[in-house]
Amino acid sequence: MAPERLRELAVMLLERHGAPSPAARLQAELLVEAELRGLPSHGIQRLPRLLKRMDRGLADARTMGEIFRQREAFLSVDGRRGLGPVVVMHALRELSPLARRNGLAIAAIRNANHIGMLAYYAEAAAREGLIGIVLSTSEALVHPYGGTQAMLGTNPIAIGIPTSEEPFVLDLATSVVSMGKIHNHALRDEPIPLGWAVDAEGRPTTDAEAAKGGAIAPFGEAKGYGLGLAVELLVALLAGSAFAPEVRGTLDASEPATKGDILILIDTEAGEGDAAAIAAYLQRLRSSRPLDPSHPVAVPGDGARARRGKTIKTHIELPDALAESLFAIEAA
Amino acid sequence: MAPERLRELAVMLLERHGAPSPAARLQAELLVEAELRGLPSHGIQRLPRLLKRMDRGLADARTMGEIFRQREAFLSVDGRRGLGPVVVMHALRELSPLARRNGLAIAAIRNANHIGMLAYYAEAAAREGLIGIVLSTSEALVHPYGGTQAMLGTNPIAIGIPTSEEPFVLDLATSVVSMGKIHNHALRDEPIPLGWAVDAEGRPTTDAEAAKGGAIAPFGEAKGYGLGLAVELLVALLAGSAFAPEVRGTLDASEPATKGDILILIDTEAGEGDAAAIAAYLQRLRSSRPLDPSHPVAVPGDGARARRGKTIKTHIELPDALAESLFAIEAA
Repeated sequence: MAPERLRELAVMLLERHGAPSPAARLQAELLVEAELRGLPSHGIQRLPRLLKRMDRGLADARTMGEIFRQREAFLSVDGRRGLGPVVVMHALRELSPLARRNGLAIAAIRNANHIGMLAYYAEAAAREGLIGIVLSTSEALVHPYGGTQAMLGTNPIAIGIPTSEEPFVLDLATSVVSMGKIHNHALRDEPIPLGWAVDAEGRPTTDAEAAKGGAIAPFGEAKGYGLGLAVELLVALLAGSAFAPEVRGTLDASEPATKGDILILIDTEAGEGDAAAIAAYLQRLRSSRPLDPSHPVAVPGDGARARRGKTIKTHIELPDALAESLFAIEAA
Repeated sequence: MAPERLRELAVMLLERHGAPSPAARLQAELLVEAELRGLPSHGIQRLPRLLKRMDRGLADARTMGEIFRQREAFLSVDGRRGLGPVVVMHALRELSPLARRNGLAIAAIRNANHIGMLAYYAEAAAREGLIGIVLSTSEALVHPYGGTQAMLGTNPIAIGIPTSEEPFVLDLATSVVSMGKIHNHALRDEPIPLGWAVDAEGRPTTDAEAAKGGAIAPFGEAKGYGLGLAVELLVALLAGSAFAPEVRGTLDASEPATKGDILILIDTEAGEGDAAAIAAYLQRLRSSRPLDPSHPVAVPGDGARARRGKTIKTHIELPDALAESLFAIEAA
């Protein structure tokens, strides 16, 4: 489907389920951008569930959330069941002048729906000349290092940093792989590499179907576990959101969203470095000696940008079942 | 050597080389704490080099650095060649009331000497009820993911989070292993695991001696590389410090220290969560089902605390050559 057609379809469906036009456009933008950048797990496949959540009052597309100014540079945000992108972009707009005035500022967000691809917000901040750090929690899917039970969320971290050229945008889950990828392997009846997951009894497994009922490993062994856990604690402590085992509402269509999100903006104008030096250093990295001469060294964000550049001119490949379900909702 | 005897020896040597008593005590504390927690790479082995740096005017133990208030919650710190721990603890004391008033605050530090074990500062913040995030850069030792040249520092990240019991303290380098560990393998003529490092020509190697002239891998493949790189950029952009290939002064006794350090404090009182819930969740993690029944799930900081508890009652094992060189300096 052409990206523009997919976006308009998503906007139309969101509006028909009660979203005001600006909210529908922003939510559709997040879903389509994820598709364009090759991140379908945060793309259009989330739309049918989101529409159900709106129908059931679990997602309210008419609110931007309520912001409480706890301190000069600390916003506490009650998302009030709002759409994730709407609540976060509203918080980002309020936070940006506070970051410029104070040097940095933070928003701690609870009760918002799934915010989608974190890179979107980190990049938006970086394009304004601010460092953007975004943290989020999720349902329990990841086991501790040395453990076998799903006790942590996939707890992604995104960092956007302005340069004099394209911004640096890092966006990673602290799990070794996404649960979506494990589901894909199960669908295609393919084994998963040992080390990705354990089964429900806690045994390391290569059986994707068994892994679905188990837990995913953290990335980077003890260190990645430590970082994912730090995100879990930091978000819960500042946002007052639930811990992973009690988080609901981003994978189901039946319960309120209880995870949390953190947004930190830092004004680079207050710093002593300069954005041109960042761009020059990144160029040195890209032209440094690669392990495989046919694969130059990349910088986070390069791949997503390249994929976007290609896909935007062609079309977005949706699984048949998903396309059909969208058309069915459209025709209903 | 008994920890108390080692501390007093370090204090005496630092004072004899010109450090005022409080600076000598703090610097000695950092070195001995690293030994107590099982991190000798940040311990007493750094003292002889530091004394040389003081003798040569590369480290000035009489300054606490100069602090410029760029914004309400943004401090820019010129370390003026001060001792790392002295400059950072001074910045932390100035930053703490700003974090309480504004919700969070940041200090960007340049021209300070090696700050040692980051966990020390993160823990100090957490004991005050603040979240402490500490970032630091270093000489180029780490290759990019998919690359083979040392282009990045080991760029450690420490995060301290208050709980109603012992604070959560995470402290990790973004390299898969420390250069110190590779040197240890080379000394003992032992091979290193494939994947730790490449040699000077960029070939993956198991030869520790060859790895010393090459580059260490980032931890956690592309994700760990992305995080280490984000630290590199964020520190350089805010502190105005050098990029890894130009960093000098933490491994030599001949050049000024040109790396940077970042300290972010966040007031948990401004948040919606509570420290008792954090402690309770960490207990659930520790008692969750382990992979190996003889190794319960651990939380970052548990290991260092256990080692400290043991070592403090016994003594610190120093390599003979190091002990002898300390006695030689003492006798000089």
